[in-house]
Amino acid sequence: VVRSTLAERLLSGDLRALARLATHVENDDAIGRASLATLYSNTGKAHVIGVTGPPGAGKSTLVNVLIGEYRARGQRVGVVAVDPSSPLTGGATLGDRIRMQDRHADAGVFIRSMASRGRPGGLAPASAGVVHLLDAAGFEIILVETVGVGQDEVEIARRAHTTLLVQVPGLGDSVQTIKAGILEVGDVLVVNKYDRAGGDELVRDLLHMLSLAPRPESAWRVPVVRVSATAGEGVPRLVEHLDAHHAYLTRSGELRTREERIASAEITALIRAELERRISDAQTGQSEFRAMAEEVAARRLSPHEGARQLLDRLAASRA
Amino acid sequence: VVRSTLAERLLSGDLRALARLATHVENDDAIGRASLATLYSNTGKAHVIGVTGPPGAGKSTLVNVLIGEYRARGQRVGVVAVDPSSPLTGGATLGDRIRMQDRHADAGVFIRSMASRGRPGGLAPASAGVVHLLDAAGFEIILVETVGVGQDEVEIARRAHTTLLVQVPGLGDSVQTIKAGILEVGDVLVVNKYDRAGGDELVRDLLHMLSLAPRPESAWRVPVVRVSATAGEGVPRLVEHLDAHHAYLTRSGELRTREERIASAEITALIRAELERRISDAQTGQSEFRAMAEEVAARRLSPHEGARQLLDRLAASRA
Repeated sequence: VVRSTLAERLLSGDLRALARLATHVENDDAIGRASLATLYSNTGKAHVIGVTGPPGAGKSTLVNVLIGEYRARGQRVGVVAVDPSSPLTGGATLGDRIRMQDRHADAGVFIRSMASRGRPGGLAPASAGVVHLLDAAGFEIILVETVGVGQDEVEIARRAHTTLLVQVPGLGDSVQTIKAGILEVGDVLVVNKYDRAGGDELVRDLLHMLSLAPRPESAWRVPVVRVSATAGEGVPRLVEHLDAHHAYLTRSGELRTREERIASAEITALIRAELERRISDAQTGQSEFRAMAEEVAARRLSPHEGARQLLDRLAASRA
Repeated sequence: VVRSTLAERLLSGDLRALARLATHVENDDAIGRASLATLYSNTGKAHVIGVTGPPGAGKSTLVNVLIGEYRARGQRVGVVAVDPSSPLTGGATLGDRIRMQDRHADAGVFIRSMASRGRPGGLAPASAGVVHLLDAAGFEIILVETVGVGQDEVEIARRAHTTLLVQVPGLGDSVQTIKAGILEVGDVLVVNKYDRAGGDELVRDLLHMLSLAPRPESAWRVPVVRVSATAGEGVPRLVEHLDAHHAYLTRSGELRTREERIASAEITALIRAELERRISDAQTGQSEFRAMAEEVAARRLSPHEGARQLLDRLAASRA
């Protein structure tokens, strides 16, 4: 009996193979790398949507109702939830486990959460890899949910065809979040819990800020969508806006530009991760690195010269 | 007439040459690199003291009175103040300018402030370079002042022979700062503004925390020193503790271990900065990088394969 590889099983729709491969990709091990190399040519079909916004904006609830809406339309949905909690907590949040229970009988939904801290090179390479797996496994919609607090998280959300920025009335930090330039990355803005006090004012402020920051390079007009995720209000209209953005990207040729930007970012992240790995190996491997540090400490070699010599060796080393 | 190089002028005590070289080092340009390579063998004589602590702890005032105390003892003092403000503000803070005015007639004092944001690879390589310049210029005491909020700042303060951690009563975040593990990097703890409400309690808490975190690898007993920087109280005793730590390091052989740790950290930071520069060059140089991103976006090449090919070329490129 010839046993199928995990990659083959993933392509035939086996979600357990997908889950196992996601772990290999997260661990960046040999099976994960080989599978991604095999599967990558099967990707490029999904609509990847980044969902970001400040803590407390209700992103998880929104993602949950978006899953329901897309499922009602017959589309399969993959979710990568980047959890900023410590790796010590085990990665999956309570909210995530609840969502998993809600959906676990539905083969049209796959949710994966990843902890963002404590990884050399950040989470970007691993989350991109899991997106590729979901894409290859035939999920038509992939939601990448991040807490928009760190630069890393915002960057991950940007690596999407469509970035959905969630705001909510009454958060003290929402204006600060907007100031930090996050507004500029949103293709679709959502005012969640719009019926709270300050909802109309927030919509007006966002429209005003958008009018101040025109995007001459794009004909897409960023919509501000009122949603109440808990009540399910505004969600069908939000999905229509997301679909419209994808149609716009395809029609205008911007989809290819974005794909290239995403590819650039992913290549850069992979290079960084690989270099960090080599630096870390060199440090823990000790011998060479320590000998160099001793020479520098003894003033027999300058730090720049030491760095240059080690860099040449790091560069020559192979993964 | 043969004109002296900036490095030669620095060695002969020319502080204007030192100031100009510091700018070259901050800019990481050819003159800065060549000068550091020349001057590095003249370093290794200064006592480098990192000063860190939360905003509001009175670090700048403390540094100012430390300068006065060391000057009264006949020692020359260099200061590198890492200012976390935006590079847009121009780097030098108001406090720094006031201190500069206080001291500008004194050739035994040299103060340099650097903005920490907006630098590829962080500030660590540049601040280490300026420390080397001050060391080569014969400053016996070098104070590296950082705001202990970001990991980067704490890391810079750690790259010292002696790390002085400043705490102050009544700051809501002081316990949090301590929790964050910063306590572990302090060789000498200062309770500044000790006569404020909560001062004795803070001293007691710090001593308690120190008793919970013994350092079996070191015979140095971390002192907690009560200081009122504005009143000048406790400062002579603080300098005695700092001198005692340096004497301890020398006597025990720990000085060499620390020098090697500092050298390792500096080499690593330089490697990272150089690699970031090459990645950035490759991205802005466009041709190769863009062609690769296009191949990846078109699914003709996997991101890992693209990264591997580019990494080989980056590694082969020379500074």
